[in-house]
Amino acid sequence: MGGDFGPEVVVPAAERFLRHRPEVRLILVGREDELRRRSKPEWGERLRVHPATETVGMDELPSKVLRNKKDSSMRVAINLVQTGEAQACVSAGNTGALMATARFVLKMLDRVDRPAIITAIPSLRAQTHVLDLGANVDCSAEHLFQFAVMGSELVAAVEELPSPTVGLLNIGQEEIKGNEQVKEAHELLSRSSLNYVGYVEGDDIFLGDVDVVVCDGFVGNVALKTSEGVAKLVSQRLKEQFSRNWLTRLSALAAMPVIRRFRRTFDPRRYNGASLLGLRGIVIKSHGGADVLAFENAIRIAEKEIHTNVPQRIAERVALQLKVRAAQSSPETP
Amino acid sequence: MGGDFGPEVVVPAAERFLRHRPEVRLILVGREDELRRRSKPEWGERLRVHPATETVGMDELPSKVLRNKKDSSMRVAINLVQTGEAQACVSAGNTGALMATARFVLKMLDRVDRPAIITAIPSLRAQTHVLDLGANVDCSAEHLFQFAVMGSELVAAVEELPSPTVGLLNIGQEEIKGNEQVKEAHELLSRSSLNYVGYVEGDDIFLGDVDVVVCDGFVGNVALKTSEGVAKLVSQRLKEQFSRNWLTRLSALAAMPVIRRFRRTFDPRRYNGASLLGLRGIVIKSHGGADVLAFENAIRIAEKEIHTNVPQRIAERVALQLKVRAAQSSPETP
Repeated sequence: MGGDFGPEVVVPAAERFLRHRPEVRLILVGREDELRRRSKPEWGERLRVHPATETVGMDELPSKVLRNKKDSSMRVAINLVQTGEAQACVSAGNTGALMATARFVLKMLDRVDRPAIITAIPSLRAQTHVLDLGANVDCSAEHLFQFAVMGSELVAAVEELPSPTVGLLNIGQEEIKGNEQVKEAHELLSRSSLNYVGYVEGDDIFLGDVDVVVCDGFVGNVALKTSEGVAKLVSQRLKEQFSRNWLTRLSALAAMPVIRRFRRTFDPRRYNGASLLGLRGIVIKSHGGADVLAFENAIRIAEKEIHTNVPQRIAERVALQLKVRAAQSSPETP
Repeated sequence: MGGDFGPEVVVPAAERFLRHRPEVRLILVGREDELRRRSKPEWGERLRVHPATETVGMDELPSKVLRNKKDSSMRVAINLVQTGEAQACVSAGNTGALMATARFVLKMLDRVDRPAIITAIPSLRAQTHVLDLGANVDCSAEHLFQFAVMGSELVAAVEELPSPTVGLLNIGQEEIKGNEQVKEAHELLSRSSLNYVGYVEGDDIFLGDVDVVVCDGFVGNVALKTSEGVAKLVSQRLKEQFSRNWLTRLSALAAMPVIRRFRRTFDPRRYNGASLLGLRGIVIKSHGGADVLAFENAIRIAEKEIHTNVPQRIAERVALQLKVRAAQSSPETP
């Protein structure tokens, strides 16, 4: 039970989700007494409590968590996925620790070097999935290529798009265009069986002409945080302008239903839940500051990935992609 | 006369500027007949035309421009800065070509390895200056350090801030925090005489708690384009929501003065004009799609940098910084 609010948010989110999905069962992992006290007994077997005595702090180092916190709610929840008792793990805890623990316990899929973090971001057309968002700061071309394969397959599965378009994030200056890894990844992607559309720039994430945007974790994280910063600035300025004097306050009253609807289209809670891709199991990271609605959305994403069998699909796609490449490098082979 | 509109925008922008600044003289560089035809003769010596027969296309490769376009308006304008006939050059042309030409003709300041592009971005408090925005895709720690020194000095000069705060752009994940260059630059900056506040994240650009944000050109360019994308998305969604039906249109009417004022606070024209730092001269890059008001703003930035003698101040600061470092590495020396 991590995140900024722990059981206070997670338990009601779980109960809301159960109300909407009569066929689903959830396991709450954490301090038994608190979880029992907070959850309604009426759910019976649909909302089990699984004890874990430790918690992982938001600032703890992943390596230390891995070594020392073997009975943390995070570790125990991922163990449940590993043993097959649970089909997915949703956590609002420390991202680095979640990543390290998931990688250690669940293991990577064959031929995938690193896990990547992906999330949907609102765009003009609908939404764009961006990865990696911070799991990997120094990426080789091959890593970027693997991210593209995984991201494409995730979107194909959960959005039911037969062949999602994939763009590689780059900058627009001529000649100095792109660093070496990006240029090399561009070559790999151009020869792949993905629906690769070429380079895209930062603004393309929000214009939505491409389904998947691939970049290294440093760049992806900066882009995500930047967009959050702009959104905060816009929201603050709008509020200021409407509260300048009695006349603007009056017009705010008139415009309120519109403004509210406008705000809703950007509501970060509707986009809460990032997937850790490349693992032998489903792990969803909720924002640490998620509220009940936001956390419920993260559970919903986990459910979708279970139903569409995302890890299995990614494993198959990675294997297929390797065959395509092998065939290209030795065209003589029958 | 580059950019998307050429003299159509540049000439009226120059005339607007002259109207506001009676002590200033401008030189228009480009095709003589067209410039004479478009500009009013009444300006006399205050608006001279300097002929240049060639133009640089927005997609031309910088290396080719440098070799083949020796009578382009861009090259001639920068030559005028080099000979001292002009004190600054403002161009809406091809960024890569402008950078390469400026570097070739004006040369770098002593001990500065690379030019960097810096611009102001609106933030909650006022504005934040960010560099590099795309001149350098692969940066060493030393490059990032030099950007910090140059950016800090520019802001000190033009914003009249005695000691601007400087942040280094990074991502927030623990342990995997930052790539090697960023970590090393952090060490260099921590020991410097700059008002260095440590790591900042993408959203800090817009919260405005720091005056200068330093990053490599790839990351900076993505952050800038990302913020443009979010702004477009927000503007489009707001328009959509207000035009949904007659009721929302009516409320738009009521809210229009507020919305207009809100839009004005983000008007990209108010922020048009990026400085090329590290050169022995002042070169300002206007957005290619700048209109008259926006281009006028770029001229205004050039004027400010002339008055505050930015290249000279940067040269002095770089020299001082090197002394600080030398003193640190050999504390025995008197």
